[in-house]
Amino acid sequence: MKLPRKYTLSEIAALAGTDFEGAPNFEITGINEIHMVEAGDITFVDHPKYYDKALNSKATTVIINKRVPCPEGKTLLFSDFPFDVYNNLVKHFVKFVPAFQKISTTAQVGEGSVIQPGVFLGENVVVGKNCLIHPNVTIYDNTIIGDHVVIHAGTVIGSDAFYFKKKPEGYDKMISSGRVVIHNRVEIGALCSIDKGVSGDTVIGEGTKLDNHIHIGHDTVIGKNCLFAAQVGVAGVVIIEDDVILWGQVGVQKDLTIGKGAIILGKSGVSKSIPGGKVYFGAPVEDARDKWKELALIRKLPEIIEELKANQKK
Amino acid sequence: MKLPRKYTLSEIAALAGTDFEGAPNFEITGINEIHMVEAGDITFVDHPKYYDKALNSKATTVIINKRVPCPEGKTLLFSDFPFDVYNNLVKHFVKFVPAFQKISTTAQVGEGSVIQPGVFLGENVVVGKNCLIHPNVTIYDNTIIGDHVVIHAGTVIGSDAFYFKKKPEGYDKMISSGRVVIHNRVEIGALCSIDKGVSGDTVIGEGTKLDNHIHIGHDTVIGKNCLFAAQVGVAGVVIIEDDVILWGQVGVQKDLTIGKGAIILGKSGVSKSIPGGKVYFGAPVEDARDKWKELALIRKLPEIIEELKANQKK
Amino acid sequence: MKLPRKYTLSEIAALAGTDFEGAPNFEITGINEIHMVEAGDITFVDHPKYYDKALNSKATTVIINKRVPCPEGKTLLFSDFPFDVYNNLVKHFVKFVPAFQKISTTAQVGEGSVIQPGVFLGENVVVGKNCLIHPNVTIYDNTIIGDHVVIHAGTVIGSDAFYFKKKPEGYDKMISSGRVVIHNRVEIGALCSIDKGVSGDTVIGEGTKLDNHIHIGHDTVIGKNCLFAAQVGVAGVVIIEDDVILWGQVGVQKDLTIGKGAIILGKSGVSKSIPGGKVYFGAPVEDARDKWKELALIRKLPEIIEELKANQKK
Repeated sequence: MKLPRKYTLSEIAALAGTDFEGAPNFEITGINEIHMVEAGDITFVDHPKYYDKALNSKATTVIINKRVPCPEGKTLLFSDFPFDVYNNLVKHFVKFVPAFQKISTTAQVGEGSVIQPGVFLGENVVVGKNCLIHPNVTIYDNTIIGDHVVIHAGTVIGSDAFYFKKKPEGYDKMISSGRVVIHNRVEIGALCSIDKGVSGDTVIGEGTKLDNHIHIGHDTVIGKNCLFAAQVGVAGVVIIEDDVILWGQVGVQKDLTIGKGAIILGKSGVSKSIPGGKVYFGAPVEDARDKWKELALIRKLPEIIEELKANQKK
Repeated sequence: MKLPRKYTLSEIAALAGTDFEGAPNFEITGINEIHMVEAGDITFVDHPKYYDKALNSKATTVIINKRVPCPEGKTLLFSDFPFDVYNNLVKHFVKFVPAFQKISTTAQVGEGSVIQPGVFLGENVVVGKNCLIHPNVTIYDNTIIGDHVVIHAGTVIGSDAFYFKKKPEGYDKMISSGRVVIHNRVEIGALCSIDKGVSGDTVIGEGTKLDNHIHIGHDTVIGKNCLFAAQVGVAGVVIIEDDVILWGQVGVQKDLTIGKGAIILGKSGVSKSIPGGKVYFGAPVEDARDKWKELALIRKLPEIIEELKANQKK
Repeated sequence: MKLPRKYTLSEIAALAGTDFEGAPNFEITGINEIHMVEAGDITFVDHPKYYDKALNSKATTVIINKRVPCPEGKTLLFSDFPFDVYNNLVKHFVKFVPAFQKISTTAQVGEGSVIQPGVFLGENVVVGKNCLIHPNVTIYDNTIIGDHVVIHAGTVIGSDAFYFKKKPEGYDKMISSGRVVIHNRVEIGALCSIDKGVSGDTVIGEGTKLDNHIHIGHDTVIGKNCLFAAQVGVAGVVIIEDDVILWGQVGVQKDLTIGKGAIILGKSGVSKSIPGGKVYFGAPVEDARDKWKELALIRKLPEIIEELKANQKK
């Protein structure tokens, strides 16, 4: 997430209520979760295992729970609870405002677009031209929708990331500051949910078509002209390249890539990155031809075992 | 879909902007996708592989992209883009009209029926007697619902068929002109989606009960007194006969038949037609007893292999 | 379900239109399905196979279709159709009242809670303090929600139990008289459904977090600090103890227990009770390590069989 304007390190430290190391007028332009950081960003780290990753990331300001030496050209904010400091900064910049009407006054709807009854458009939502949003759809704050997009009834765009941190007293929620961005000519079926990014964008690429009851997790980026059948679920931080087809009830685990043009047959489960251009089946998925062979072999197994035993008796 | 009145071939050709072959006053009464055609219907074909099927179908007017000889008693419309001509004709006859209120003025609701707050009823929707439609349900134009039907909150009836044609520049959508027809004493759970037919009807038979989060695809016809548990997904153009039970999270592929009284155990995947009167399990499904035997064998396999190897050493 | 006041046996028999055996002023305080009965309750039984279970249960008044001897300290109501008598009594005490507005006049909302547009709150709904209910959520009558609860858009709380009795002429519905009770600091994703209890409560324990598209069946009781990923489905009458994690698309069958701290990997199916503290995978689930070994063995099977055959030839 970009900050609304440039901030200085000392301003941010004052907002966060923390000590800092570095030039007080060091420039800060964004705040992002570690997967999404760029120069100018604040991020956080609270486990020694990840100190190096955070300190060597592109982020130039790190909230950290140890007085480590400050890397060249970077700055530090010190706190015993970096996760809470990060969350409080996000809350400061992304204020949730209760809505008093179904279409917010800051939502923009392009020429030729139809918004059917019962639709909710949150703050700063942008809907492009010639879109059709069917009844009872909910579109959370800051969602961006392109032109010629169709969204069927009951669908929810921009709900919070499912991202919780285990603490001794229970789960603590990471505040989502990201968005959903839907490109031109996308069609989304009824009763789908697309979560916003934790600090970046969840993206549906141009011309992609989703059937009903599909779930897309936070920060997942889907390419162009993909086709997902009903009840597919894709976890967070997944990359799905162009022209991928997922048939019904496929599940995709977090933090992996599905290559261009891959086809995943129905009810499969994808648990690691897979190259494009091939057909997959199974849970976990394998090359579909291998999987068919396995299934055929299993069916013949009683016979094969009988034969081996009979030969041994001879 | 039936046309609103009888049309002549020359009228349709003028609407479509195409050449034609046949008597200018040849009678046309419907327009249908190839699976649903009857005498009097227009259909389309654009691939040489399917020319014979379309020309020999019950349809009496065929939109085609080659100057083939006209079959006896039939007529032809010529276009390089039969799919587009078909879609444009459908759009001409099934005009989408934006709604200005949640209950359309052309919707009919029978005596004793309760429509809870937040429900959307589109144009020409018919709800029978003594129905209960819970809050925030969306019922698209032209849906027909019988008597004593209960529909739980958030459900969507009549969303578009998920039916796209691959073109070099991306997917092109087949315009749905069909309906959903729900018979008496059906109960539908919360957050289900039932898509309308592409050109025919999606049907839920009398007394059938659906749990929550169920998806029923376009043109699927479900018999009487079926029971589907939560999160079942049924693709398009499926026939499910009477008294079928699908347990939780079952998936059914398109274009197949499940026989009367079949029981499919939870999480199974049905990928081909199966006879009724039996219990099935697995993905893909097998007779449940065969599947249990396979699973038991797999668990004993390490032991069996050890034994075979040990015998060989002797 | 508790009755609104104490009733006598003769009052209930008059309401039910049945004969009875026992003291006319015998006290009745509740009406419950057999799994949930306590002293003071009415229950019903209509199959000789279950007579003993019902007559020996904690229920002190039993609706029964045979003139059996009345157990000591209990009372009986006689009817040829005990199920119908039970349903009619429930209907008498739990009257469904059509709603005329989205927020009922008897709903209570605690200090600091935000109810977004399009939310339906039924009769007697209680929402605690500092909750956030996102747009287009439906909360049925009598639901109880604690403090600091977040519910995302489109979710449905308190829909009817999916509980039907097969009769020769079709399925007959058991009227739900139970509730949903959601404890403090629960977060529920978009488009989830949580069914009310048939006669008791469906419960979500403190601090538990649900992702999107999750289904929880009637009378299921979920412990504290559980984490369920998207598209999980849990059937009715399940007990899930504290700290359980269910990953995406897991299915859980009815009437079983998952022990404290169990972790079930994605796409698994739980078909029997399993102890806590372990990791499970598969459909049906096994210890995950056993399942991984099986999958590895199946992949090596062609090679193993070749080797065994080759050895036999020698």
